[in-house]
Amino acid sequence: MHPTSLTDSTFPYEIKDFNFGRILDENPNFHSVIVLGTLPVPSSLQSSETSSSKEASGPSESVAVARLPAILRIERTAFPPSFTDGLSSGVVASTRLIEHTDIYSWMHGWLERKEDLPDVKINVIFPATEVHIRKYTKQELLMVTETPELYDGVVKPYIEAFPASRTQWVRDVVDGKSEAERILCRTSDFLILPDMKWDPSGPISSLYLLALACGPSIRSLRDLRGGKRGHVGMLEEIRETAYEIVAERWGLGRGNLRMYVHYQPSYYHFHVHIVHASQAGMMGMTVGQAHLLDDIISMLKLSPTVLSELTFTYGLGAQHGLYGGMAAAQAELDVSWKGTR
Amino acid sequence: MHPTSLTDSTFPYEIKDFNFGRILDENPNFHSVIVLGTLPVPSSLQSSETSSSKEASGPSESVAVARLPAILRIERTAFPPSFTDGLSSGVVASTRLIEHTDIYSWMHGWLERKEDLPDVKINVIFPATEVHIRKYTKQELLMVTETPELYDGVVKPYIEAFPASRTQWVRDVVDGKSEAERILCRTSDFLILPDMKWDPSGPISSLYLLALACGPSIRSLRDLRGGKRGHVGMLEEIRETAYEIVAERWGLGRGNLRMYVHYQPSYYHFHVHIVHASQAGMMGMTVGQAHLLDDIISMLKLSPTVLSELTFTYGLGAQHGLYGGMAAAQAELDVSWKGTR
Repeated sequence: MHPTSLTDSTFPYEIKDFNFGRILDENPNFHSVIVLGTLPVPSSLQSSETSSSKEASGPSESVAVARLPAILRIERTAFPPSFTDGLSSGVVASTRLIEHTDIYSWMHGWLERKEDLPDVKINVIFPATEVHIRKYTKQELLMVTETPELYDGVVKPYIEAFPASRTQWVRDVVDGKSEAERILCRTSDFLILPDMKWDPSGPISSLYLLALACGPSIRSLRDLRGGKRGHVGMLEEIRETAYEIVAERWGLGRGNLRMYVHYQPSYYHFHVHIVHASQAGMMGMTVGQAHLLDDIISMLKLSPTVLSELTFTYGLGAQHGLYGGMAAAQAELDVSWKGTR
Repeated sequence: MHPTSLTDSTFPYEIKDFNFGRILDENPNFHSVIVLGTLPVPSSLQSSETSSSKEASGPSESVAVARLPAILRIERTAFPPSFTDGLSSGVVASTRLIEHTDIYSWMHGWLERKEDLPDVKINVIFPATEVHIRKYTKQELLMVTETPELYDGVVKPYIEAFPASRTQWVRDVVDGKSEAERILCRTSDFLILPDMKWDPSGPISSLYLLALACGPSIRSLRDLRGGKRGHVGMLEEIRETAYEIVAERWGLGRGNLRMYVHYQPSYYHFHVHIVHASQAGMMGMTVGQAHLLDDIISMLKLSPTVLSELTFTYGLGAQHGLYGGMAAAQAELDVSWKGTR
């Protein structure tokens, strides 16, 4: 039952030939690590162009092998459904006690080798470019504070300079040019469809829908207003329509949904994330980045202009387009805070 | 190098004797599963008292073995530091391609058996009681909406009925009777100390501090007020003091901290969670449950009584003391919402 190495002759490399360079990122909570290293250039691709990457390992090695950068994202696999049944038939081959006290004990375990029980999932990018390396390198996250003045001076100009091409896909969806068959519901103000990240064949707890405003006028939650001509009606309709859709299609109740808006969002065309309430530990639901639709509605009902008056605090990665401007501005805010103490 | 089974004669059971019953909970994001089953009663504990749990497996088995309930929490292990170095020397023993396209490929991998590379960590509770089983069983999470009226009618009475013994540990800390040596800073209003969940020997990104109010008058964020005699001064001082502590002790900047308050909290004595901004995917940071300290300050500055006027939305597990009352109240809210549409 021990699986053999990949020997498909059409596939150009094997992981055992990977030379480790450095760690780009890791997340112990998710049991994952991303590393940069090199793999040998497949003989079919060897040419004089790649000779600059050649590494001679010493005089004893007669053949120099050209190598190119490769990124490996290695993640522990989730347990397959067969795993728990296997507990009675010895899938845990051996254990080593770490500690025990009273009725509690902790141990490490080694599993049986099984065809249907891989240890890891490996994503490979090969050859990897500088752009890939930057993208997968851990970004220092800076918590920044956006006062209304900083919104006007830094964020709003950034949003207005955003190339229209970045939200062309939204306009295509709204215009019915793409994903028309996936749309679950459409009104004059918004439409609701499954998020691209959701695999509907997964458990219902992975449910992930998206509500997209039809018009482009709301760029972010900073533009939302209460009052008679404001957006509360639309926001409440998005919420009630989402409840109706998940009740009809999936038999879920109102209490099974968590709906939120990102600030900063990844694109500046108003949208609401609609996920199953039992999703836990998902990125993008973190306080500071995510704002509950219910909270937004409640705040706008109390004070119609509150979202233009509040100070927002959120994390920015070093590669984010706002990082430079906002990081510089924080230093000045810090000085003024210290001055007022 | 293959680790052998646990044979410490003082330890009363082996995982290979576990009989699987059912899954209590699982979380694919965290690669963990919690199962209920049985383990044989150690011979040292066998007595007539346990005979009621005896299982006769058939006439051919001459010795009936008494068994008792056991809970196993099995989690994939994080990669040890040695793992990434090992990538160059073949720790990935074999692979199987899932798919490949252009420069991207995905595969499953099987790792070498190594003493220092366990596959799983197993927490065992044995014998487990009904209370343990309930505690580890997945709780249906219901998103509930708490209007100011529901706070007054359901939540406030619940908080006021909370036994004082539940927050005795807080008073002991505040009075200096416990954890005195761990306190990082104390003012007349609050103190800051490492959270019990934090292991300071881990990476600095796991930093987790706690700010505890000294007085018992603020039970939750619902009690926070702005204005001259309000709490903004104390909240700002908590924030600035936390910045100073992490700068002095760990060389971290202001942008490296995320501070938040839970609603509902697990105990009704005001406290602020202070964690490293790069913590990702940690439970307890989810929007709806967590509220940024910065947001709270900003809201109170705009409107001193806003936290008693807002409607809050959050998830409640079926075992939570507020579940019954809040779940019943939601049905009435739903009716009134539908009526106003």
